[in-house]
Formats: sequence, structure tokens, C-alpha cells
Amino acid sequence: MTKPAYVAVDWGTSSFRLWLIGEDGSILAERRSGEGMTTAAQTGFAKVLQTHLDAISAPDAIPVIVCGMAGARQGWVEAGYIDTPTSLAAILTGAVSVPGQSRDVRILPGLAQRSQQVPDVMRGEETQLLGAIAADAKGEQLVCMPGTHSKWVRALDGQVTGFSTFMTGELFDVITKHSILSHAVAGAAEMPADTKAFEAALRTALDKPALVTNLLFTARSGQLLNGLTAAGAQALISGTLIGAEIAGALASAGQDAAITLVASGRLQALYEDAFRTLSLNYKTIDADAAVRRGLSAAAEAIWFKKESKS
Amino acid sequence: MTKPAYVAVDWGTSSFRLWLIGEDGSILAERRSGEGMTTAAQTGFAKVLQTHLDAISAPDAIPVIVCGMAGARQGWVEAGYIDTPTSLAAILTGAVSVPGQSRDVRILPGLAQRSQQVPDVMRGEETQLLGAIAADAKGEQLVCMPGTHSKWVRALDGQVTGFSTFMTGELFDVITKHSILSHAVAGAAEMPADTKAFEAALRTALDKPALVTNLLFTARSGQLLNGLTAAGAQALISGTLIGAEIAGALASAGQDAAITLVASGRLQALYEDAFRTLSLNYKTIDADAAVRRGLSAAAEAIWFKKESKS
Repeated sequence: MTKPAYVAVDWGTSSFRLWLIGEDGSILAERRSGEGMTTAAQTGFAKVLQTHLDAISAPDAIPVIVCGMAGARQGWVEAGYIDTPTSLAAILTGAVSVPGQSRDVRILPGLAQRSQQVPDVMRGEETQLLGAIAADAKGEQLVCMPGTHSKWVRALDGQVTGFSTFMTGELFDVITKHSILSHAVAGAAEMPADTKAFEAALRTALDKPALVTNLLFTARSGQLLNGLTAAGAQALISGTLIGAEIAGALASAGQDAAITLVASGRLQALYEDAFRTLSLNYKTIDADAAVRRGLSAAAEAIWFKKESKS
Repeated sequence: MTKPAYVAVDWGTSSFRLWLIGEDGSILAERRSGEGMTTAAQTGFAKVLQTHLDAISAPDAIPVIVCGMAGARQGWVEAGYIDTPTSLAAILTGAVSVPGQSRDVRILPGLAQRSQQVPDVMRGEETQLLGAIAADAKGEQLVCMPGTHSKWVRALDGQVTGFSTFMTGELFDVITKHSILSHAVAGAAEMPADTKAFEAALRTALDKPALVTNLLFTARSGQLLNGLTAAGAQALISGTLIGAEIAGALASAGQDAAITLVASGRLQALYEDAFRTLSLNYKTIDADAAVRRGLSAAAEAIWFKKESKS
């Protein structure tokens, strides 16, 4: 059996994922839980990590590489930000050690775009990005990482030149739960149930992004006047927000940009449908694989570079 | 003392306003409460109305004219919609009688824009509109009625040609209460506390409305990176949403459109600041006065037209 080499952790706001990685890079064990930063800040980050390490019987000596919100100010140990423009390799050198641990635990920094008009930050996605595009990549790249806060990253020759966060997922959540539109979507199953309504809303929002807060209301007026169903209203809200996101992202990158979609599961299907509908040029990279690859690149750079050359 | 002629009621989703109007058109008494449709649907519309009529000792014989959500399907008696394009005078003829009342109570209809792509509805604002622009008005008019759901109405020679609802007020509410940005605005006083941040956000959103869901996130990243205050974050969110609303409204009407702002209080100040900042051409009409004038026009048309000519 392959010998365990290190542990990789993606520690988000509301989710915790851990992989035990072997010397040959294979996954020896995996853990997923809802013990994200919010929960861990209460129960203790060290305790949460130890519980999962115990559950997979991780050897005492092997190190742990962490990305995500564990490195936020309100997280475990603040890991700061690397400022854009930056090479992706700079992320690897910015890892912060967690003091007082029996094993070597390091947290990767986030990325910051220090701008007065459009400041932006990411934590966790920079590691996904590292796994999605090679540090020696050539030419322009536009990477879309959809989620609660979708990130669109512009890169040139492996350098991150800038990025934009769109609050798409969270807006969908608060609008369908807390606004008048919660009545319009009541009883709808999980997305995407009405692809026709989704695609129509997507096209309208891409065409008229200035009308986004108006188009959202058509989920209600469409029900009152046109017999729009709950599934249709839900798809309309989702399509409008994703359409506006794509319109905003392409406003600077251009309609012909080749998009690298880093996603998995439901979001992957939704964004692939969106890109196909809008005839955009894209390829997909699995988000889970990307974050593991990014964490592995960091682990290799920190602990195994010299060994692998000896 | 002037003799009471009729009672005018603006019955919204969450607010109830009543005026006792004299034969000479003067206000003899006024009532305001939170017994909007939501509350009245529980306690009973007739009961709520009677309590307020009793409180001002309204004579038994005088009639009551009502506009707003009392005429919605989930309201007191459904008053339907008048379809656009329509003359404003058509609203006056569409009033529905409430059956089984000891006095003559009529509810005014709403307006509906029956369109597959941008269906829209209003209830209450049509009466405000009637009071804001004369039925014999000439030329193009663009009327802005800000609120929970801001309404922008396009009219030509006194005919309503179309309108758009922007969810500005409600989005501000759910975003500042339920999203991650609730932390960014925590502790901020009531708007507008930071006019500089408001005006900057307004300009950015008008310039780049496609980025609205990205610009909202700068309320968070601006705090993490640029020391943005809670008041600044709140102003940024408000300015972004209002800027996007104006961008959307002007996309069809054009930057040179003469805007009639129908508002009062805090919203009036906010939108006047916005229009001034963006160098837009506008005049203001008090919203309270407008809805009373619209209700009076309806009362005159229904009950007093012939008498006034005799």
C-alpha cells in the first residue's frame, strides 16, 4: 500500500474537506463535513482537524496543508493576502505556519486586488486556480469559479492580472428565501427544473444587464400575468443572476474569451448549460480535482521539492 | 366648517393611510397605521377600515375610495388590472364596489403590462401617477416612483405606454439583513450617512450596470482592504442599487429624459441627490400629495362629476 505523505484540507466558510494523499499522489482517504469556519470558530479549529485526522488514522508525522477561510482574520491563523498582479507561484511561498501544533500545519494565503474602485478578495479559490491553470500557462485566460460568491479571474501567461467576485449564489439564496419572490418559487424543486425559462432569462440578462433588478421582478409579474410556474420563477431568477454575472465578466474580457469553468456537480451543469446557450467558448475542469491539485502543488513546493530531487 | 365629502384610502402591503376630504377638497382628518394588506388580511379589511372611520367620526353616508393592495387577489376585493397602453382616465372607470358594506366603498384597479418578456404590474402607484401627471399632459414623460419596488413609468400625451419595476428597496433590505454584507453594514445609522460613498457608487453603477452583483461585493472587500466604514458600506450598497435602477430606466428612455420624481421624505432626498449627482433633468412631486390628488380625481369622477355641473 502507498505510504501517506501529507493531508490536504479545503476549509471554507461552511464546509470542510480533507484528503489523505499518498506518496504517489493518490487519495488514500477522504472526509467531508459541515464544520466550516463558522462552526470551527466555535468548536476550535485544532479540535475539528484532529477529529478528522483521527478518523482516518493519519500518521502523527505527516504535515497538513490548508486553504480557504481558515486563513481569514476571523479564522484559525490569519494567512494574509498576496496582491494582484501576481504569479500563481507566489501563493505557494506565502503559506503561514500554525503555531503550537504537534505536526506541521500550514495555511495558504488568499489573493487581494487592492483597488479603490473595485477592491476584491478571494480565499480558497486561489488554490483551485493554481490547480486549474498551470503556472507556466501561455496567453490570456479567463477562469470562472461559480458558487456563493462566483469568482472570475483574468490571467496572462500564468500571472493573475485581476479578478471579480459576483454575489450570484448568495443573492439567489436571499432573494428566494427572504424577498417577495419567495412566494413565487414556493414548492419548486432543486434547480434546474425549467431549463427553457432558465435559458430565456439568461439571454435577456446578457442582452440587458442594466435591467437585472427589474428582470428579477418578472418572476412575480410573470406568475400574476403569464401563468409562470414556481419552477419557472426559480429558473428565471437563477438565469437572470447568472446572465448578469456573465455579462459583467465578459464586459472586460470580451465575448470571444476562452473560459475555463472550474466547477462540479449541480453548478457545473448549470454553468455549462449557460455557456452553451450563449454560444460561449469554454472547457470544464472539475473543481474538487482542481483544489486537490492546488493543495498538492503547495505541499510539493513546501515539503517535498528537495526530497524529490535527491 | 367644511362638510366632509368622502374618505380617501391608500392601502399598501404594509401601510394604511386614510384622509377625510371636505367638499372644498381640504383634508379634515388623517390616519396612518401599519395595518396594510398583510395585517388586514388577518384582522379583516372591513373591521380595520371601520375602526379608522370611527376614530375620525366619519359621517355614515359618505363614500370611501381606496387604492393599493386592498384590490389584490389576496386583498379585500380583487380590482383587476387595466392593461397598458392606456389612458390614465381608464383607471377612474375601473373601480370595483365592495359588496355588503353599509357605505359605498370602491377600490381602484392596478395597471398591467402584458408582455411575455417583461410582464409588469403595479397597484397603488397608478393612483399616485394619476395625481402626479395630468390626464391631458402633452409630450413624453418619465415618472420615477421610488420604494420597496420602484416604478418607472413611460407616458406619452397622458397615455401610459409602459413601465418597469425595480426591486431596489427590497433588495437593499434583504442584502443588508440576510447576506454576508449584513456584517459590513452592522452599526450603520439610517441612510444616507455617507453621501460621498453613495455618490461614488451611484456613478460606478450607472457607468457599469452589468457589474451590479460584483459592485455589491465591494462593500465587503472595501472594508477588508480599504478601511470602508459601516456607513460607507451601507451607502455603497444603496448607491449601487439605485445607480443600476437609473441605468436600467434610462436605457430605454435615454439620458436626456425629463424625470418626474414622485417621492417624499428620506427617499425623496436620496433620489434627488442621485439625480443631481448624475446631472439628470428632474422635478419633484410630493408622493403623499400625489396619491391624495389621484384618489380625489377618482372620487370626483365617480360621485361628484354630475353634482358639480348642476
